[in-house]
Amino acid sequence: MSSLGYVTPQTMHFAEPLPLQSGAQLRDYMLMYETYGTLNADKSNAVLVCHALNASHHVAGEYEGTPKSTGWWDNMVGPGKSLDTDKFFVIGINNLGSCFGSTGPMHTNPATGKPYGAAFPVVTVEDWVSAQARLADKWGITQFAAVMGGSLGGMQALAWSIMYPDRLRHCVVIASTAKLSAQNIAFNDVARQAILSDPDYRGGDFYEYGVVPKNGLRVARMVGHITYLSDDDMAEKFGRKLRAVADDIAATGTYKFDFGVDFEIESYLRYQGDKFSEYFDANTYLLITKALDYFDPARHHGGDLSKTLAATRAKFFLASFTTDWRFSPECSQEIVKALIDNRRQVTYAEIDAPHGHDAFLLEDPRYLNLVRAYYDRVWNELNDINSKEAA
Amino acid sequence: MSSLGYVTPQTMHFAEPLPLQSGAQLRDYMLMYETYGTLNADKSNAVLVCHALNASHHVAGEYEGTPKSTGWWDNMVGPGKSLDTDKFFVIGINNLGSCFGSTGPMHTNPATGKPYGAAFPVVTVEDWVSAQARLADKWGITQFAAVMGGSLGGMQALAWSIMYPDRLRHCVVIASTAKLSAQNIAFNDVARQAILSDPDYRGGDFYEYGVVPKNGLRVARMVGHITYLSDDDMAEKFGRKLRAVADDIAATGTYKFDFGVDFEIESYLRYQGDKFSEYFDANTYLLITKALDYFDPARHHGGDLSKTLAATRAKFFLASFTTDWRFSPECSQEIVKALIDNRRQVTYAEIDAPHGHDAFLLEDPRYLNLVRAYYDRVWNELNDINSKEAA
Repeated sequence: MSSLGYVTPQTMHFAEPLPLQSGAQLRDYMLMYETYGTLNADKSNAVLVCHALNASHHVAGEYEGTPKSTGWWDNMVGPGKSLDTDKFFVIGINNLGSCFGSTGPMHTNPATGKPYGAAFPVVTVEDWVSAQARLADKWGITQFAAVMGGSLGGMQALAWSIMYPDRLRHCVVIASTAKLSAQNIAFNDVARQAILSDPDYRGGDFYEYGVVPKNGLRVARMVGHITYLSDDDMAEKFGRKLRAVADDIAATGTYKFDFGVDFEIESYLRYQGDKFSEYFDANTYLLITKALDYFDPARHHGGDLSKTLAATRAKFFLASFTTDWRFSPECSQEIVKALIDNRRQVTYAEIDAPHGHDAFLLEDPRYLNLVRAYYDRVWNELNDINSKEAA
Repeated sequence: MSSLGYVTPQTMHFAEPLPLQSGAQLRDYMLMYETYGTLNADKSNAVLVCHALNASHHVAGEYEGTPKSTGWWDNMVGPGKSLDTDKFFVIGINNLGSCFGSTGPMHTNPATGKPYGAAFPVVTVEDWVSAQARLADKWGITQFAAVMGGSLGGMQALAWSIMYPDRLRHCVVIASTAKLSAQNIAFNDVARQAILSDPDYRGGDFYEYGVVPKNGLRVARMVGHITYLSDDDMAEKFGRKLRAVADDIAATGTYKFDFGVDFEIESYLRYQGDKFSEYFDANTYLLITKALDYFDPARHHGGDLSKTLAATRAKFFLASFTTDWRFSPECSQEIVKALIDNRRQVTYAEIDAPHGHDAFLLEDPRYLNLVRAYYDRVWNELNDINSKEAA
C-alpha cells in the first residue's frame, strides 16, 4: 500500500488554442493531473513532476479498487519521502499526445469529428512545458519550488528553466540529456518503423478499424526496453539462462531448435513487449519518440549549451547513473558544465548503480537520500524566505 | 578493381546425410564456395575463411559483368595482401541455411517437393563446421594452414579448433566471442520477432505466396546495424545532422514535424534496411541469429572455457576493436585467458579503432598489417616444416 493512500486524477479543460512549435495549434484540449499534499497560502511550495515515455500524471498513491495501481514514482513522492508531500504540494501532469487521459491521438479531432490518429500534431518538449505553464496559471502558481523529472521528464524540467526562468526556484533533472545522440535517434526510429510498417497501423487510423498495431508496438517496446537496462544487469539477471518450461522441466538445459523461446531474456522481453502492446497507444509512442528526438534547446544557439543555459535563473540538481548507456553520465556532465560556465548553483550526483537507465525509477537508498537532502534544502530555503518576509 | 581479378563460384554436392546438433539431418545438400590461389602439392597451404551474418563464399575478387561485386574481405585476401593468395590457397565457403547458394530455406525440401521455408532445420556453428570439414575431405585437405573468420566467422574458426584440433595449424579469430551475452541475444530476438510477426512471413512459407516479409527484415536489419556501429562513430558520421532535402534545401535546419525522415541517421538506417530486405532471405536471417545465440562451446563443460579449450592444438591469433560493443574486447580477452590457461600459443591484438564491430571488415592499416605479420609467420612455419621434411 502506498503511504499516500488513494488518489484521484482530475482534468482541466482549456478552450484557448495552444500554439505549437510545428506551427499547428491545439484547440479545446484537456490535461489530466493529480496532486498530492497541500498548496500553501503564498503558493510557494508547489513541485511539478514531469513524466517520461510510458508514464503519466499518476506519480504516486493508488487508485481505490484497482490493484497494482501504485504510481510510477511512489518510492520518491509521498509523506516523509524524498519529495515529501507533508511539505510540498506535488503536481503530476499527463502530457498532450499521451494515451493516459490528456488530449491525445485517440480523442476526437474537433476539425473532423473522428479520432485524431496520425493527424494529432507532433508535439515537443517545449509544447508540453507551455501547456504545463497554463495549468500552473490556473492555480495562480507563479513560481514552482521545483520542477522535476527523470529521462524525458528531465528534459521538460530543463526546458522550464530556459523558457520560464523565473517560474521555478529549482530544477531537478535526473538521468536525462540536453539532446539525443545519433544512436538514441536510431533506436527510436527502429521503434517507429516497426509501428509504421505494421499493417494494422493503417496510417494511424487503426481506431476506426477496430485493430491495434500490436506487433509493431511489441517490437518497439522490446528494442526500447533493451536500452533501458544495462548490459551488466541483463547479464546478471538473465545471462544465458535457458527458460524453464513448467510442463517440460526435463527440457531445461537443452536448446529447442526452433524460433520459440530458448532463453529467459527472450521470454522476459517478449512478455514486456506483449504487456506494453496491450495498453499503450501506437500514435502516442510515435509522438513521444519524436519529442525525444527533437529536444535540443542548444540548436537555437548554434549548438552552444552554455549560451542556451545563460537564460536560466534556477538552482539545479542533476543525477546520473554509471551504467545508464541511454543517457550516460557524460550527458548530465555536459549540462553541469554549461551551468557552471554560467555560474549557476549546481548539485550533481553520479550514482554507481547497476540498473542502467531504469535506475532512476528504482529503490536505491543512496539516490533517494540525495534527492531527499536536496529537497530539505529547497524546503529550508522557502522557510527562510517566508520568515524574512514575515520579519 | 580487385587485385584478384574475376573469380567464379563453384558448388559441391553431398549425397551422404549430414547429422545436425538438433537431431535432424540434411540430405542431398550442396555447398557453394570459391577458391583463390593454388593448393600446393602436399595440400598444406589451405586457409579456410568463414563468413559472418550477411556474407558468403564470395570473400574476394569480382564477378565478371557484375559491377560492385567485390568480395566482402577483398581488402584482406588477395595477391600480396594480408592473407596472400600468392602463397596460400584460400577457400571461401557459404554456410548451410544461407540465401547465397548453399542449400537453404528457399531450396526444395526433398521430403515435400516444396521450399523448406521454416522447415529448414535449425543449424549451429558446429553443424557448419562439420559441413566445412566434409568439403575439406573431398579435396584431401587433412590440415588447414589456418581457419579464419570475423564475428560469427570467428566462432566457426574457434569451433574448428575444438572439434577438429589436428585439422588446423592456426586459428584466426577476429572481433568474435565464445558466447553471446543476454543483450546480444535480446537484440537478435527483436530482429526475429520483427520478421516472425510480419504477416508476409506466412509462417516461413512466403515463397509460395510470392511475397517477402520486407518490413520485418527491414526493422531486423536496422536494429542489427545499430549494434555494428559504435556510438562515437555514429556521432561523428551523423550526429544530429538533419537530412538535406534536394528539392527543399531551404527546409534544412528545421524539423519536419511528421514521421518521415528528419535526421541523416534515420535516412541512412532506413536505406540500409530497405537494401537488405531486397536481397536477404527472412528464414536465413532467423537461422543465422539462432546459430549466433546457440554458440557456447563451454556449455558442455559447465561454462568453463578453459576446460573447453583444453581440446585445442592450434596456435591462435585473436583481434578485437576497442569500440566494438557487440563483441567487446572483453569477449576476446576471455578466450585469450582460457587459451593461456592451457598454455596455447596466442597472439592477441586490441586495435584502437572508432568503427565498432564493423571495424573487422574495414581498411585499417594497423589491423591489416598485424594479420599480414601473422600470416608471414604461418607461411615461414610451413616452409620450415617443408624444408625439414625435405632434408
